[in-house]
Amino acid sequence: MNLTREVLLTRYEHGRIEETPDIVVREYPLTIFVNEEEFVTLLCSPNNLKYLSLGFLLSEGIIKEKSEIEYVEIDEGRNAAYINVKEKINSSKHFTGKRILTTGCGGGTMFYNVFGSLQGKGSDNKALITYKNVISSMKEFSAKSEVFVNTGGVHSAALSNGEKILTFHEDVGRHNALDKVIGEAFDKGLNFSDKILLLSGRISSEMLTKAAKRNISIIISRSAPMDLALEIGKELNMTIIGFARGERFNIYTGKERVMLE
Amino acid sequence: MNLTREVLLTRYEHGRIEETPDIVVREYPLTIFVNEEEFVTLLCSPNNLKYLSLGFLLSEGIIKEKSEIEYVEIDEGRNAAYINVKEKINSSKHFTGKRILTTGCGGGTMFYNVFGSLQGKGSDNKALITYKNVISSMKEFSAKSEVFVNTGGVHSAALSNGEKILTFHEDVGRHNALDKVIGEAFDKGLNFSDKILLLSGRISSEMLTKAAKRNISIIISRSAPMDLALEIGKELNMTIIGFARGERFNIYTGKERVMLE
Repeated sequence: MNLTREVLLTRYEHGRIEETPDIVVREYPLTIFVNEEEFVTLLCSPNNLKYLSLGFLLSEGIIKEKSEIEYVEIDEGRNAAYINVKEKINSSKHFTGKRILTTGCGGGTMFYNVFGSLQGKGSDNKALITYKNVISSMKEFSAKSEVFVNTGGVHSAALSNGEKILTFHEDVGRHNALDKVIGEAFDKGLNFSDKILLLSGRISSEMLTKAAKRNISIIISRSAPMDLALEIGKELNMTIIGFARGERFNIYTGKERVMLE
Repeated sequence: MNLTREVLLTRYEHGRIEETPDIVVREYPLTIFVNEEEFVTLLCSPNNLKYLSLGFLLSEGIIKEKSEIEYVEIDEGRNAAYINVKEKINSSKHFTGKRILTTGCGGGTMFYNVFGSLQGKGSDNKALITYKNVISSMKEFSAKSEVFVNTGGVHSAALSNGEKILTFHEDVGRHNALDKVIGEAFDKGLNFSDKILLLSGRISSEMLTKAAKRNISIIISRSAPMDLALEIGKELNMTIIGFARGERFNIYTGKERVMLE
């Protein structure tokens, strides 16, 4: 399914008015059904919906192992993903227990709940990266994102081994882009703990939490980290690098993982 | 409460490494209680929490008139907003009925539900703007946003009468920035239908829906609109202007409201 749609618009520029075609990013509502019950509706870019569904359920703690999944079926025409898992899920309980509204964020009650369950994560993680590879990884990452430069409407996320990007996804939502990356890596049986997460958007506490749950300990973003993400990251001994653009970046926490050579 | 926090970071730039202080944007979890019951937790910038709470409840359809509100009390230390309203609210029903997760977005089921309730909005709205005032409004808007340019971590929203900005707010979440603007205008008894909404971030279907519910019919953003927002906007006869930067902008829908003089 196309990720963009052509529209006709009226462009004003320095006093000149013209009718011109242009492209806009599509928003596609995907409803995920777990064991035949409606679970959630995500608004996303309409590709890699299987990875998105898997990554989302993994991030939410609904699934943990591939062996728990009976089947995954995507019906694009009906805007639906049908996933059956072996264990019974009480989806209404799952969400009423949280009631967190994100701002492309998360937080609050979730943060305090999640914090306990994350203790011990990160600290035993031996992932490392060199200064040089921070630069080269983000260069590779930006080059891949160029497809969407024209629309200005998507975020990207990728998993790298420090030398090479292994999975890369774009989406109108930065949480979705990350869940697609997580879902693909999970589906392909990749190990998360020695990988590096690359992001185009801000590192909020929710983005950080999704990474921490997978035991990823190095996150690099083109954008800013937020303070709650830094607090959690520091506590979990994670490495957070922000504003990685061209020949510069900022290491906010966990600089001991960034090596000179 | 400060919207930013100073942190010490390690900066790498063209081979030079230095320790330096810098500022990051704070994420503050605010739990809104309605009639003593926990309703939702928002992750936001910690200012104008009364406006945020009012705007959020207004956008969610929980309150409609000021007369319905018995009191609003903000307890910053406890990260809580206490709002009492005259009518009984079933908050768990409110959220389980939706189960939409945003990506800084919204959509899906919500979109289809909301669409019906929005029929007739917008079309009777007589708001107008000139080409010149699109440019000047966004110039005023950008000048106000400059405080946060350094952190790269916030969105802004404003309500203008076409000549002058009446309310302006910033937040880590673009939905929150808009809800703060809506909350302040509501609290001050401003009329929405003849105003123009200015945004820094993308126009998603959820941002558009929040505006449509207030009967605002002109939206101008520095960023891109998404296609579902354009579909709803077209249906409701709203004017959507995107990529308004310097001496240029794109009119996607409703160009009849944009006048030469």
